[in-house]
This record gives sequence, C-alpha cells and structure tokens, in this order.
Amino acid sequence: MKKLLIASTSTVHGSGFLDYLLEPLNRLFDTAQTVVFIPYARPSGISMDEYTKIAQKAFEKIGKNVKGIHKFKDPKQALLNAEGIFVGGGNSFVLVSELYKNDILSPLKSALQMGVPYLGTSAGSNICGISMGTSNDMPIVHPPSFETLGVVPFNINPHYLDPNPNSTHMGETRETRIKEFHCFNSQAVVGLREGSFLEVLGDRIILKGPLSARIFRANTAPYESKSGSDLSDLN
Amino acid sequence: MKKLLIASTSTVHGSGFLDYLLEPLNRLFDTAQTVVFIPYARPSGISMDEYTKIAQKAFEKIGKNVKGIHKFKDPKQALLNAEGIFVGGGNSFVLVSELYKNDILSPLKSALQMGVPYLGTSAGSNICGISMGTSNDMPIVHPPSFETLGVVPFNINPHYLDPNPNSTHMGETRETRIKEFHCFNSQAVVGLREGSFLEVLGDRIILKGPLSARIFRANTAPYESKSGSDLSDLN
Repeated sequence: MKKLLIASTSTVHGSGFLDYLLEPLNRLFDTAQTVVFIPYARPSGISMDEYTKIAQKAFEKIGKNVKGIHKFKDPKQALLNAEGIFVGGGNSFVLVSELYKNDILSPLKSALQMGVPYLGTSAGSNICGISMGTSNDMPIVHPPSFETLGVVPFNINPHYLDPNPNSTHMGETRETRIKEFHCFNSQAVVGLREGSFLEVLGDRIILKGPLSARIFRANTAPYESKSGSDLSDLN
Repeated sequence: MKKLLIASTSTVHGSGFLDYLLEPLNRLFDTAQTVVFIPYARPSGISMDEYTKIAQKAFEKIGKNVKGIHKFKDPKQALLNAEGIFVGGGNSFVLVSELYKNDILSPLKSALQMGVPYLGTSAGSNICGISMGTSNDMPIVHPPSFETLGVVPFNINPHYLDPNPNSTHMGETRETRIKEFHCFNSQAVVGLREGSFLEVLGDRIILKGPLSARIFRANTAPYESKSGSDLSDLN
C-alpha cells in the first residue's frame, strides 16, 4: 500500500529544513531506521554530498539516518530494499534527467507501489505526478522525457503562487501557465501552496496543512479545495 | 548582415501590443511590405489565427502586412524569401517543439544570417540565444532538443525579474535559477527587464530601452549593464 507525503516545499518561511513536517514524517517513517535520499535535484547547484548532509541534519531530529543514493553500488536494489525514501527539491530537469540516466525511475515507482514510505518536497513532489510538465524550474538540462512516476493520478505544481493583483509585470502568471499546460495535456493539476502537502495512503489522497489548494482541470474554471479534502478521485 | 530586435516583452504595462516598439520597428522593417509571423508559441493557448490577427493589428500602425507562417505551403521557402520575420511570445517549449517539428529552425537561422530583419519578443527572443535553457515557461510539451538559433553568443532570460526582498515565498528566485543554469552550461545570460531590448546589427549588439540589464556569467558575481552598453563581446 502506497505511503507518500508530497509537500509543496521543504522549508516554510522562518523555520529550518523540514521542521514543519517533523511530526507527519515521524509517523510516515515510523518503522524506518535509515532513509535513502535522492539528492539529484541539487538546489543552487550544491553537491550531492552537501545536500545529503542537510537532509541528515533534519532527519536526526526524529532519530533517523540518511544515506545518499549516490553512495550505493546498486542504486536500483537500494530503492527496492529501502525502509524509506526522500527525494528533495532543486531543479526538476536535473532531477528527472538523473533519474533517467541512472535508470531508476522504474525501480523508484515499484518501491513506492510496494509500500516503501516516501517523502517528496518541491521537485521531489513534482515527479509524483504523471509528468513534470507543471514544474516552475528552468530547463537547464534536457531530459529524454517529461514522464514521471504517476503515483498520483494528476500533476503537481509545487510552490503554487497566487497572481499578485498589483503587479505590473507582464510575464505569465502561474495560472496562465497552467492554462497553457491544459491546451496540450488533459490531467488535473494541484497547485500546492507552501505549507501544504498531500498524504497518500493506498489510493486515498488527502490535502493537509493550513491552506487550501488550487485545482486546475482542463476546460473548467480553477477552484479551491480546503485542507482536509479528499483528492483521490481527481484526475 | 544580421538585423535583429530582441525584446524582453511584446507589451509594457499600460500600453498595447508592440506599442512601445513601433519606432524601432519602423526602422527595422523599413524595406518590408509584409512581415512573416511565427505564432507557434500561442500565449494562453490562443489559436495561431487569433495570434496572427493581434500581430496584424499592431503592424498596421506602421503600414505593414502580416502573414502567419502556418498559411504558407512551403514555410522554409517563406522564411528564406521573407522581407521581415516576427516570432511572438507565449510558451517557449511549444515554440521550440513546433520549430523542430516543422523543420524550420535551420532555415530561420539562415534567413537571419542572410540579413532578413527579425523581431523577437519574449519566447521569440529566448530562441535567439544558444539554447532555450533560460526560459521561464512551463515544460508543457517535450521538444527534441533545447538548442535554439544562437544568433547571439549568449542566452536570453526575458521578463527578467529582480528578487523581491520582502517576499516570504520559498520558491527559487530568478537569480538562483540562473545560478543553477551555470552549473550545467557555460554561456553568459542576459536578464532583459521588461521594456529592454537588444538591437543587433551584424555582430554589434547594443542594449536599448530605459533600464539596465542584469548579466550573469558562470563563476562570476552578476552585474548590471546600462542601457546603451555594447554586449557584442559577451559570451
């Protein structure tokens, strides 16, 4: 049975890395001693070792070890044997490229479907959707495909940002960008605001955190789903 | 000799489509009767016909006709025979996918190198760089490559936006994203603020408009280039 926590962000303003999630993470990873960390997305281009240290420091607070996937001789097997998996944020294009290059997208999906508990933040949440097509990141490398895990039946837009009514900036708003997405793709998109996360248990998907999420479906006006909503049937 | 006008945006706040550019466009397209318009980027998903009408309405103000590339039987030949070319903004991934699908990236580059006057706005400016890797758009379709025209020796970030010092949003700033770009790519990036544009005559590239541009080079602190600066040697 799938056990996933899909968070908009690793860090809410004014607190440390993963701090706001420690309680649900304690529950998610209750039986895990060691969490396998996938640091491929490399935020601000930091090294995989540096990024793993940041994750380690946060997980120490709930008494867990962290080991970077890049330290395993057989990363595929490491995922299938993992007690818990965390994919951190950064650049989605880099993350997805590395998942393909190391041929671990499919074993990662298998591990999640087998019930290995999973935490994703930002880019690590974006890849839980059907595609990475609603990423906010820059295309700094070219992945062979935008298809991702599809462990939820829709797409995720992390760090969802409401339009600023006072802005004079003429670049597209997030809402306009997602509207453009729906000219070419049919799946729903969950705009997850910072502090929001999805808890997935089997096929049940519940929106958690203090805020509502903005839901986008093709040919439909966007709408709000309150915290606590069941999004299991959204697609 | 190349004759290009590479603009951050088609529209500045409070005025109509291309209005702020009419004077330099009148000069750029002085010998053209008809401008070939490439509407592939389809902002907000509007149709290519609708988008062409918007361009037509703007160009009427300087007495030019506009014809959409999608109306030509032989689009490659249309580009090579064009008196002027305009590539409008929208989604860069859609634009670049269509350029590859219709096999016109190479004839477009040839036309520009032969001296056909060219206007690019937003996504149409982004493609003047070496790659589309500094686009702000969502990856709503998957182009076979991110390589673009390379008619300037650097990359363009259109709609460049300064970090907001009061923001509590934890998504990456534009500056952070470009820093990540430079972990994987070596070319300089010109952050073109709205209202700014590059005028290219042969190999001479001059920054125009009321604002400075922000210049990003790998392993170097970003800096400002004033309006009027010569960016010909930037790479």
